[in-house]
Amino acid sequence: MGAVTTADRDRAPKQDRSRATRQRLLEAAVACLAEHGWAGSTVLVVAERAGVSRGAAQHHFPTREDLFTAAVEYVAEERSGALRALFPEGAAQDRREVVSALVDLYTGPLFRAALHLWVAASNEEQLSPRVIELEARVGRETHRIAVDLLGADESRPGVRETVQGLLDMARGLGLANLLTDDRQRRERVVAQWAAVLDGALRD
Amino acid sequence: MGAVTTADRDRAPKQDRSRATRQRLLEAAVACLAEHGWAGSTVLVVAERAGVSRGAAQHHFPTREDLFTAAVEYVAEERSGALRALFPEGAAQDRREVVSALVDLYTGPLFRAALHLWVAASNEEQLSPRVIELEARVGRETHRIAVDLLGADESRPGVRETVQGLLDMARGLGLANLLTDDRQRRERVVAQWAAVLDGALRD
Repeated sequence: MGAVTTADRDRAPKQDRSRATRQRLLEAAVACLAEHGWAGSTVLVVAERAGVSRGAAQHHFPTREDLFTAAVEYVAEERSGALRALFPEGAAQDRREVVSALVDLYTGPLFRAALHLWVAASNEEQLSPRVIELEARVGRETHRIAVDLLGADESRPGVRETVQGLLDMARGLGLANLLTDDRQRRERVVAQWAAVLDGALRD
Repeated sequence: MGAVTTADRDRAPKQDRSRATRQRLLEAAVACLAEHGWAGSTVLVVAERAGVSRGAAQHHFPTREDLFTAAVEYVAEERSGALRALFPEGAAQDRREVVSALVDLYTGPLFRAALHLWVAASNEEQLSPRVIELEARVGRETHRIAVDLLGADESRPGVRETVQGLLDMARGLGLANLLTDDRQRRERVVAQWAAVLDGALRD
């Protein structure tokens, strides 16, 4: 219970500033990856976009791989949180709304950024183990949210694979949206498969 | 009906040689794209891999965009033909076999090559319209084959979207296989969704 020193008083705002810088870098990194792909995304480009010095950026993220995997993870966590917040009561009555919200996870800038990272990792040995681990972690979390929100009982045979297949479909719908605005077709597919899924989970 | 000249006699083998060269270039281009991605795939690299001079390669394909879109289309047509040949009687009795064969379209080197092309097109204006048109054409053909082989009656409401969603899922399963060998999980998802689909198409 010592006296509060000047150093103590300075520490909190400094930590806040550091956290804010980190967050700006992560958000700039995802936007950069979504817009310019892996080849056009370097620490320097992201630092400039975030209005942060290169040195400060490298203090937070020593390597390019650190920066971009952290960025995709950060935004994935933000999106997971937002998805849970959409359905505060947990399992929703309307499965179509849940399917639609799950599919939305895969059609925005986060998915574009993640896709660039995956595809780059398939050719870059330095990146690949990091991205595999990240994808497994994000995939598990998304699966858990989907099970909760759909009110799916995974102790019943086939239910786990039903939910997995739905998330695979969402990923495929994201890919179909990469080059063209696929919204109209996607909405019809979501409506139809939400009905099919409803039957499959009720049986 | 004039006499057969030496030029006539030479023409046929020359055309054969030209066709063989073109085919070697297309196959090398897909392999190159799958292994090295768009950034590492140039006309020169493909020509060397195919054992063809740069001049000959450029005679067949004046631009890089020509070569790689033609390559993905060529291999997609080969794969479609092979898929039809697997089920020579048309609509198969066993929908699980058909679903499994459709999903296989999205897990090999062709899908990897196409994925690199799509992702590159999302950042390259010169490539984008070509790939959009190619994807629409290949997508329509794959949909037609899926409808035939599944014996799906598209005049019934929802059936078109059911088949579309299945192909979206296949694309998502292809993506999940990009960095890790996802075969075991995929087989369980395919088995489960083939059963769900069977119900949806029978209802």
